[in-house]
Amino acid sequence: MLKKYLITPGPVSVPEQVLLDMARPMIHHRTPEFEEIFKEARNGLKKVFKTEQEPLILASSGTGAMESAVINTLNQGDKVLVINGGKFGERWIKICQAYGINAESVTIEWGRSVNPADVKAFLDKNPDTKAVFVQGSETSSTVYHPVKELAAITKDMPETLLIVDGITSAGVHDTRFDEWGIDILITGSQKAFMLPPGLAFITLSQKAWNMVEKSTLPKFYFNLKTELKNQLKNTTAWTAGVSLIIGLKTVLSMMEKEGIDNVFKRHSINAEATRAAVKALGLKLLAQDIPSNAATGCFLPENIDGKAFVKYLRDKCGVSIAGGQDHLAGKILRISHLGYHDAFDTITAVSAIEMGLKKFGADIEFGKGVAAAQSVLMGEMPSI
Amino acid sequence: MLKKYLITPGPVSVPEQVLLDMARPMIHHRTPEFEEIFKEARNGLKKVFKTEQEPLILASSGTGAMESAVINTLNQGDKVLVINGGKFGERWIKICQAYGINAESVTIEWGRSVNPADVKAFLDKNPDTKAVFVQGSETSSTVYHPVKELAAITKDMPETLLIVDGITSAGVHDTRFDEWGIDILITGSQKAFMLPPGLAFITLSQKAWNMVEKSTLPKFYFNLKTELKNQLKNTTAWTAGVSLIIGLKTVLSMMEKEGIDNVFKRHSINAEATRAAVKALGLKLLAQDIPSNAATGCFLPENIDGKAFVKYLRDKCGVSIAGGQDHLAGKILRISHLGYHDAFDTITAVSAIEMGLKKFGADIEFGKGVAAAQSVLMGEMPSI
Repeated sequence: MLKKYLITPGPVSVPEQVLLDMARPMIHHRTPEFEEIFKEARNGLKKVFKTEQEPLILASSGTGAMESAVINTLNQGDKVLVINGGKFGERWIKICQAYGINAESVTIEWGRSVNPADVKAFLDKNPDTKAVFVQGSETSSTVYHPVKELAAITKDMPETLLIVDGITSAGVHDTRFDEWGIDILITGSQKAFMLPPGLAFITLSQKAWNMVEKSTLPKFYFNLKTELKNQLKNTTAWTAGVSLIIGLKTVLSMMEKEGIDNVFKRHSINAEATRAAVKALGLKLLAQDIPSNAATGCFLPENIDGKAFVKYLRDKCGVSIAGGQDHLAGKILRISHLGYHDAFDTITAVSAIEMGLKKFGADIEFGKGVAAAQSVLMGEMPSI
Repeated sequence: MLKKYLITPGPVSVPEQVLLDMARPMIHHRTPEFEEIFKEARNGLKKVFKTEQEPLILASSGTGAMESAVINTLNQGDKVLVINGGKFGERWIKICQAYGINAESVTIEWGRSVNPADVKAFLDKNPDTKAVFVQGSETSSTVYHPVKELAAITKDMPETLLIVDGITSAGVHDTRFDEWGIDILITGSQKAFMLPPGLAFITLSQKAWNMVEKSTLPKFYFNLKTELKNQLKNTTAWTAGVSLIIGLKTVLSMMEKEGIDNVFKRHSINAEATRAAVKALGLKLLAQDIPSNAATGCFLPENIDGKAFVKYLRDKCGVSIAGGQDHLAGKILRISHLGYHDAFDTITAVSAIEMGLKKFGADIEFGKGVAAAQSVLMGEMPSI
């Protein structure tokens, strides 16, 4: 018997009520019934992103929404700055290059957060920069980049957008779209929103919509003006992801019931507990500056083959956590805290790692990581 | 957000594949399609109970099958012996009394297993005893009664049946119906068989069927001769519990894939790990002789209100474990190991108890119980 625990940084477990709601008989998307659901979902998203702007719901993965951000606001030959400290920073560069955009980058070691002063210095030297691209949380390096501080820099630059891939930071870290002055925020359904993959959300500031008017890059499916026009009428330009949007409505009502700030707090405490656990086990954290609350990365002991370790926990013990990507492949673990994840998921992950490390020959004292996690989690145990 | 963990001694969690199979569109029970499913389920049950006899599938809870055992084999005024060491021993007495059967009992303190010598002594003095009633596992006191040893006593008494309530022992402890010479074995769907409640299974030996011929107690729904006649043709006397039987077929194929002896081993190791954990936390075990592998009972510190404690873990932390019944209400915990339960369920239960006890003011060292459990569970971690 292999009971499965999905503790990877997306996709994540889907709550039972959401699965049940998505399993209900199909309805048509050009109906008042669906429009009512769509409206509720749009309103719910505004609360999560803390915005009065219009979050658009796309039938695509997060990468589609990333591309839509580029092609709706920029023009061929534009200069942009990409904060590149991991696999998803690199993706911004690749998308820009595909459209003939001049993507310069601040390159950061995997595990470091960007220093806003470096961005400021670049923009001071290059005032013609049309956009700064960043990951709120860089999933590959498990760091958080200081979105608020970056927004403070771009806020007063009328022709420079801050475009945030919030795929693993929106719904995880408090992200105040309007207050901070973010220009574009993107996320996907399979992370904090604990849905199956297939939806992406993108919100644009007025400044970004102004840039949309001037953008001449070719687009059709991802034409955000077309989407906005439709979504203001509670429908979609193209066929909507009906079941996922039904599930989204349920997720958003769960989040509202929990309280969005409590959702952030839950991610934060599970992340803090996991960091305490891995440190107690003598494993070095990957994040050196501001760790992401989406996932915790840590180095394995050097003599352990990380790929075999992750495979063993997943295939033999049923516990899926992620390994490293690119040059960190086989060297690190990434333990998710995303979405439908509670204290006992954290304890499951930590206890599985303890037993797995022992099995792989490491000198591990059972319960040491778990105890460190419990000490942190205890702080958020409900009152009697 | 309250994620729920059902770690009670029945009902237990139902595996996803079983839920999905039970959610398929309804089929009619008087069809070749259903008969094929029913046949597979009957054959699967034989393997679990290690018998060549015919396990009958009833649409009832386990108590219905208990009653059917009494009313199909006995007569008014018969003398029987009930092993009474808990709430379910008492139930045998109540059923017998409802039908005018003279139920004598060996009364045992809750937490003790019966001494077969006491049964032997009673039967030597009362050779006209028509049946010995016992719980394989007495769920209220979390003990195992030595079924094999009891069967060895009754095996050579042609007119004395050993009737075993195996509701929390069949599928948990190895139970060799034919080899040991059990006469009647009963179990329910919501324990080791990890289904929703609603089905009961009852198997009779040839000796029991001989007694059925002489039984004159009134019966209709629970007439086992009528059931046998129908079930040999892969149908039921009355309307079958269609979805549950479809689920049962899936459960039995899961059990066969795992290997029935591995199912017993899984229960055994999780029970042993839990006993090690509660002992490490300084909690006294309830079972003094042979602990059941269905659930582990332990005493709470005297100053802790067990009812409030169980309610707190269930309603505030999402972790359902059971408290005590009758005179043990509020004094003990009962942690299940039944059915769809793995090492991480054990760790979840133990870590929740550790944090809960701390919250209730007990002097608890975090991770101590978890570490003790891990040390045991490690013995069954799959090889790399």
